[in-house]
Amino acid sequence: MSMFSRFELLATDGAARRGRLHTPHGTVETPVFMPVGTQATVKGLTPAQLEDAGARIILGNTYHLALRPGDELIRDMGGLHRFMRWDGPILTDSGGYQVYSLAPTRKIDDRAAVFRSHIDGSLLELTPERAVAIQENLGSDIAMCLDECPPFGTSADYLRVAVRRTLLWARRCREAHRRKDQALFAIVQGGTDLELRARCAEELTALDFPGYALGGFSVGETPEQMAAVLGPAAELLPRAKPRYLMGVGRPEDVLAGVAAGIDMFDCVLPTRNGRNASAFTAEGPLRMRNACHKRDPAPLESDCPCYTCRHFSRAYLHHLFLAKEMLGPTLLSLHNVAFYCRLMASVRRAVEEGRFAEFRALSLARWGLSA
Amino acid sequence: MSMFSRFELLATDGAARRGRLHTPHGTVETPVFMPVGTQATVKGLTPAQLEDAGARIILGNTYHLALRPGDELIRDMGGLHRFMRWDGPILTDSGGYQVYSLAPTRKIDDRAAVFRSHIDGSLLELTPERAVAIQENLGSDIAMCLDECPPFGTSADYLRVAVRRTLLWARRCREAHRRKDQALFAIVQGGTDLELRARCAEELTALDFPGYALGGFSVGETPEQMAAVLGPAAELLPRAKPRYLMGVGRPEDVLAGVAAGIDMFDCVLPTRNGRNASAFTAEGPLRMRNACHKRDPAPLESDCPCYTCRHFSRAYLHHLFLAKEMLGPTLLSLHNVAFYCRLMASVRRAVEEGRFAEFRALSLARWGLSA
Repeated sequence: MSMFSRFELLATDGAARRGRLHTPHGTVETPVFMPVGTQATVKGLTPAQLEDAGARIILGNTYHLALRPGDELIRDMGGLHRFMRWDGPILTDSGGYQVYSLAPTRKIDDRAAVFRSHIDGSLLELTPERAVAIQENLGSDIAMCLDECPPFGTSADYLRVAVRRTLLWARRCREAHRRKDQALFAIVQGGTDLELRARCAEELTALDFPGYALGGFSVGETPEQMAAVLGPAAELLPRAKPRYLMGVGRPEDVLAGVAAGIDMFDCVLPTRNGRNASAFTAEGPLRMRNACHKRDPAPLESDCPCYTCRHFSRAYLHHLFLAKEMLGPTLLSLHNVAFYCRLMASVRRAVEEGRFAEFRALSLARWGLSA
Repeated sequence: MSMFSRFELLATDGAARRGRLHTPHGTVETPVFMPVGTQATVKGLTPAQLEDAGARIILGNTYHLALRPGDELIRDMGGLHRFMRWDGPILTDSGGYQVYSLAPTRKIDDRAAVFRSHIDGSLLELTPERAVAIQENLGSDIAMCLDECPPFGTSADYLRVAVRRTLLWARRCREAHRRKDQALFAIVQGGTDLELRARCAEELTALDFPGYALGGFSVGETPEQMAAVLGPAAELLPRAKPRYLMGVGRPEDVLAGVAAGIDMFDCVLPTRNGRNASAFTAEGPLRMRNACHKRDPAPLESDCPCYTCRHFSRAYLHHLFLAKEMLGPTLLSLHNVAFYCRLMASVRRAVEEGRFAEFRALSLARWGLSA
């Protein structure tokens, strides 16, 4: 296990965990939500606004950054932290997911994933060694092994191929990884096949990575299908290490993840929905283009301490979106990130106080959902 | 003269003036530049960012706000200051300029300007009384009389018609204006015809408005044509009242305005150019999409104290614009507003110290221009 990225398990409540992750750029209280900064920016927000919203660790996308502006340029500029001026911890993904979700054509074999850039169509390849080299150039606090992440509905046969390749690539990533100030996490694949996930987790655990992720969720399966596998899948991961559920998700999915024993989450929803005029609130989502907000002097949430809620009415936000003003997406993204960060703070208190199940049931009821 | 909006002339340097404008929302040091907040937002910037950039007074557009979200809605939400959460002074224009520049069709006679909305094509009319009522609903600190502002190249005959109508409307605006916490400024028209401007200024001065604007500049004439008339036109305005040059302009035009004895300026350039990747600097403009910035670790300006320059490299800004990230327009707009505000602070010191002509010549030389 890496020396620098130490995880403390502070308390549990059922399977839910309360922990602390130490990184070279500071300590993160878990469970934690990581806003996504795909292209070296969490869309629409300055680092100061991001910090003000309560974000403590963010995610960067290896695939995007390697294509533009290039990982060597970022290295030469002093690394991703300095380039984008985010002084807190950064986790970078490995690009495996984006090869499937973004690249228009691809060919994957044991040697590499070869694909066309979605920016200029040029032919590129991602090997485990290259994925590690990119992330070492970026200088993230936590790097991820290159994995193969097929979509939901992939045949059982191919799922086995993908798991075998993910294991092969994890070993090669581990071998290639040099940076001592960066933790390399492994990714467990296997879709909704628990036996396959168990084998994958077992082999990866034997390699003693400093952290483990569940990949292959939020790739097209229903929330029910995810819920059925999530608990058992999380149980397969070593108890003493941080557990990260990649690309998840909606507030209710995050609560399901915490209930399953997950420590870390990331998702584009708070910023993407913010740009699309949808606000997260404790009473469920608000669509800010709706006419009902036109004359409403109330903030999005009366008890939210974010900059947006401290200053602006729903009427003003409604106006900004109707007038297509960029301040609307910025203010709503800021609030949505703050909403997720406050949700996680409440989650952490609930786990500490042994009332997470109650907190989750209450939250779902307030959002008009059932567990 | 209104009691609330008092102007102090502190010092002069040739025709250049150093003053202080007291408003219900605070005192403004002049010469001053007002960023434009057309739709109740200075595009891309929060009020906090705007204040951090050094802005002390901003402009709102009567035409846009009356169409959307509506001046009565803004009144019901507590006025424009509260609606957009800008606690400093606000000046609103009268909409006369926008009727010419934006409305797809229009018919103007002594009674009203009738035009189609550029938003939904509905038929609307602006009378002097309505322009005052809108601005009273908005609750700006400084309101402007409705004027007729024909483009450059208008016939001498029509220019006389426009001046006659501008005078007629100024009287009707003055008659209609009720708010004691709002100053109503008059606008002198007359194009490049100095005799016409003199008559217009004389008649308006007799009405003793608390402030005077020069309209009809930056409407298609060349900078040389403006320069030839600006000095004599400004001299026609009462010395004891603030003088506002509407819609001007580039940094060199602002310096020409100060040299002519102007106290107040507004222009969309800092934010519009910021959105289009063009940065103002003391060495002239930088086009941030240019490849020369790709690996430049320097800030836009090494001695600029704005948030953008304190934190980000040219390489990062270049990346944001290439990646079409909205943070690029935000950070560049912020810097450009800060550039204008710092320029005005330097102007004020130069006038105080009796070296404005020298300062102006030096600035133009640094920007690669001649006076």
